[in-house]
Amino acid sequence: MASKVSVQTSPSSYPSLTKLKMTPMPCSFEVDSFAKSAHSGVFHLLPLGLRVQNKLEALIDKHMESIGASKLSLSSITTEALWRQSGRYSANSELLRINDRRESGFLLSPTHEEEITSLVSGMVQSYKDLPLRLYQIGRKYRDERRPRQGLLRAKEFLMKDLYTFDYSQEHALKTYEQVRQAYNNIFNELKIPYLVADADSGNMGGKLSHEYHFISPKGEDNVWSCNSCSYIANEELVEKRVDEVPTSDPLVFEGISTDRTTKIIIAVPRPTSQEKIQNLTWDNISSFVNLHAAKKAAPDLDTGIETSTLTSLLPKTTQTTHITDRRLSSPQQSPNIDLTPTLPSSPCPRCPSGKLHVQKAIEVAHTFHLGTRYSTPLNALIAVPDSSEKRALQMGCHGIGISRLIGATASLLSTDKGLNWPKVIAPFEVVVVTPPSLSPSTSASTSTSTSSLSSTTSSSSTPSDAERIYDTLTSINIAADTILDDRADKGLGWKLKDADLIGYPVVVVLGRGWRESGVVEVQCRGLGVREEVEGRDVGGFVRGVLGRL
Amino acid sequence: MASKVSVQTSPSSYPSLTKLKMTPMPCSFEVDSFAKSAHSGVFHLLPLGLRVQNKLEALIDKHMESIGASKLSLSSITTEALWRQSGRYSANSELLRINDRRESGFLLSPTHEEEITSLVSGMVQSYKDLPLRLYQIGRKYRDERRPRQGLLRAKEFLMKDLYTFDYSQEHALKTYEQVRQAYNNIFNELKIPYLVADADSGNMGGKLSHEYHFISPKGEDNVWSCNSCSYIANEELVEKRVDEVPTSDPLVFEGISTDRTTKIIIAVPRPTSQEKIQNLTWDNISSFVNLHAAKKAAPDLDTGIETSTLTSLLPKTTQTTHITDRRLSSPQQSPNIDLTPTLPSSPCPRCPSGKLHVQKAIEVAHTFHLGTRYSTPLNALIAVPDSSEKRALQMGCHGIGISRLIGATASLLSTDKGLNWPKVIAPFEVVVVTPPSLSPSTSASTSTSTSSLSSTTSSSSTPSDAERIYDTLTSINIAADTILDDRADKGLGWKLKDADLIGYPVVVVLGRGWRESGVVEVQCRGLGVREEVEGRDVGGFVRGVLGRL
Repeated sequence: MASKVSVQTSPSSYPSLTKLKMTPMPCSFEVDSFAKSAHSGVFHLLPLGLRVQNKLEALIDKHMESIGASKLSLSSITTEALWRQSGRYSANSELLRINDRRESGFLLSPTHEEEITSLVSGMVQSYKDLPLRLYQIGRKYRDERRPRQGLLRAKEFLMKDLYTFDYSQEHALKTYEQVRQAYNNIFNELKIPYLVADADSGNMGGKLSHEYHFISPKGEDNVWSCNSCSYIANEELVEKRVDEVPTSDPLVFEGISTDRTTKIIIAVPRPTSQEKIQNLTWDNISSFVNLHAAKKAAPDLDTGIETSTLTSLLPKTTQTTHITDRRLSSPQQSPNIDLTPTLPSSPCPRCPSGKLHVQKAIEVAHTFHLGTRYSTPLNALIAVPDSSEKRALQMGCHGIGISRLIGATASLLSTDKGLNWPKVIAPFEVVVVTPPSLSPSTSASTSTSTSSLSSTTSSSSTPSDAERIYDTLTSINIAADTILDDRADKGLGWKLKDADLIGYPVVVVLGRGWRESGVVEVQCRGLGVREEVEGRDVGGFVRGVLGRL
Repeated sequence: MASKVSVQTSPSSYPSLTKLKMTPMPCSFEVDSFAKSAHSGVFHLLPLGLRVQNKLEALIDKHMESIGASKLSLSSITTEALWRQSGRYSANSELLRINDRRESGFLLSPTHEEEITSLVSGMVQSYKDLPLRLYQIGRKYRDERRPRQGLLRAKEFLMKDLYTFDYSQEHALKTYEQVRQAYNNIFNELKIPYLVADADSGNMGGKLSHEYHFISPKGEDNVWSCNSCSYIANEELVEKRVDEVPTSDPLVFEGISTDRTTKIIIAVPRPTSQEKIQNLTWDNISSFVNLHAAKKAAPDLDTGIETSTLTSLLPKTTQTTHITDRRLSSPQQSPNIDLTPTLPSSPCPRCPSGKLHVQKAIEVAHTFHLGTRYSTPLNALIAVPDSSEKRALQMGCHGIGISRLIGATASLLSTDKGLNWPKVIAPFEVVVVTPPSLSPSTSASTSTSTSSLSSTTSSSSTPSDAERIYDTLTSINIAADTILDDRADKGLGWKLKDADLIGYPVVVVLGRGWRESGVVEVQCRGLGVREEVEGRDVGGFVRGVLGRL
């Protein structure tokens, strides 16, 4: 009988969801009803969490469709041989290797550029088959040095990855803009504020790249933006307007190359506020030197080394390189290198009056124009118009961190009452909360609300309790994604608190008002709504509230 | 414009599907449009294959809902420590190990009894929270010694696994019967003939077990059934009526124990047809001895050893064990051991006149009653009624091989024309095939069918080609899961052949008849239908055909 009750709204999940659900702890996504840590950096997704994930997948599917992308499902297994061919094997220290009986060199894929390029190159021969846009939503693996913050940085995580294929850079850049627009549409539907930052493409290859960020104190990225114009960039790419005042008393740091042969001496202008200059070791160099800029000037600079190791290695170096901020050197020496870090209130590089400020952010998506970074080494060539020679495919790759986005959303939108899901990815849009006396396994055979149920179309002349709830839901006709909390062993107050903790966007309460006069209370924390509504008007009212979310 | 055309039916997949689609080769599932081998035993699922998988998942979801099972998603990563605790670590030689930087002892899960037991034991404390039924559909991993037959035996494969939890054996057995009924319902909807065999539970623990098989010459299992009654059993469990004629001239084989200390001498009656008795080595022992029965009598018997190895090891044994067929021994010695293999036409053990015959079969699903096999070692205890002591959970596990079922279905139902998907898991139920002149990118600006399109609700007074197709589909109103083949660079004949190869259940042809008189041809290979239908009647006709599939 309980299953008949549930069929009305959320047929599958209710009875067992209830059973798996622990009392959730607000603001601590991983230990509540949605996901559970199994091992360090490894999570199981519980039924409510899987529903959130499925909603997010459906949202992404819709916008991938809008740009003509087809969904497929690549294996999680790839091979060392393929990654050697692309040149990424040795550079990636986070690859997880699988031991099998044949020593096949199997790896768990952290990303799928190699596999998709290999797949497409075997199936597409001509520009006539392009553009081609293929995506998947699946698990990826990374030997995370320090798994932390739950779903934000795990060893196994879910990604949406889209790969695009064009035959010319011009077409590829148009594709890139279409993907960016689709990404904007996805994030706009989520209704969570986000920043899009110019980004460096790291070891993905290519040159054009953007990051999508949620602003959050939990974030591990720094996003810089101007308080006056639309300039936004991440830590690696942020520029600033540089004052031209030279200084004759530089700060000097000694670093080392990754191969340990070369001492790298870095000189920057001394900051005007002297009080900060204490303990000038390598460990706090980033307060004085923009290491991203230093690394651009000296690509073999080891930026990750610790002072103690550095001190023991420096005496053994046999060569010396200097990198010097442009204000300390003649233009011939190191033209235009600004080695000082961007500081809060630095002048904006793009507008005359703006100042830059920095925010902690969580990167949730990334777009890359790859060009021929993978198609050339993997020999993915196609016939092109107006040429007898085949040409390498122009590619793009575009990721959304599914599990990270879910974790970030849970953490960002939670309040002291509990989680607070955006409508579009909430596990259910609406929860209907009943007192135990309306619940299926209670022994109360009649209730004062029977009269208001008699107008339903139930064919049974003596409806069971379960049938009465089913009929109640039918009579209030909530045409939305609804779950019914009809647990018989919990009181109304407990259930309302639980609904807040789980973070359903809309709560419909069949409380005393329903028994006495057929009115229900509709609550929406996001909009500050708490209103009594006639039973027959509930459907329209709830749809109105959902429409404003 | 092409995307508007596709929105009517299969918005996402069409344009790119086309591009990924190679000319499929019938009966060779892995090299066609559905899946593609990436490495030995490792496959990528292409868009059409993913659609088949999604359809199968939806079918399973429906029937899992019917028994109140909730869907979750467990990590693919498990640990050696947990598998040691259950006692399965050393017994499983097909476990794939992951190398990570911390040597965490991570494994890729081949199945999830340990993880789900650990998860549930942390969340469920009392019988009041039961029954609990949890399932997932996800990837599993196995270090397959010899990957073969494509999706039928791969290293990475997709499984549906359901785990059930009850507090008494009585409840658990009721659950078991409900799951079996749900499984029967799933296979009945697939409309592929299947056998359900009594099965041995192998190293899963427990005692009650059934296998679901598709009969197929590609199968690697032997399923025995009676030609007169309903008796069906797999190779391990099959019984037979044993004639009681003793023989004084036995066949004798010498085997060895797995620890190499014991010679195991097996004696069986000499078969009456002498001509088969040649070359009596261990390698062909299974023609004369039922090794499953022998292993029951001597569990440490090494049944996998080869004659050459055996010959060199036997002289070093220090002990001897005899196992003897009951017709050769006194009842005191080895009571009731029948060591002879079941042969075709053996008498049925259950009915007086039936004879057994054997069929090659592909195992596609398996149900196990586990009892406390995992809950006891993993200490998953709950409070029970009428007792102050906690008791171990009564569990069941129930698998469906998703990728294997897809591979088996493709191979079973294919004909010389191509694949032939059951309606319920076909990538699309219907394909609408248009000649190039109706296609969006053709330059033919008018066609003779324009008049028959004028009755549609198109708001454009000068419709484009794409809009005309869209309107055509609207006018013939096929209310089914439909894809439109509007490729402009392929002829009608090529497209019809392609539709057959892919195996859509219903093909609707907008051919010459459509241009000349507004009739379409509806084809259904499964029902032998090939009929001309008035455009306005197509929707109802197609729904009628689909209803009979």
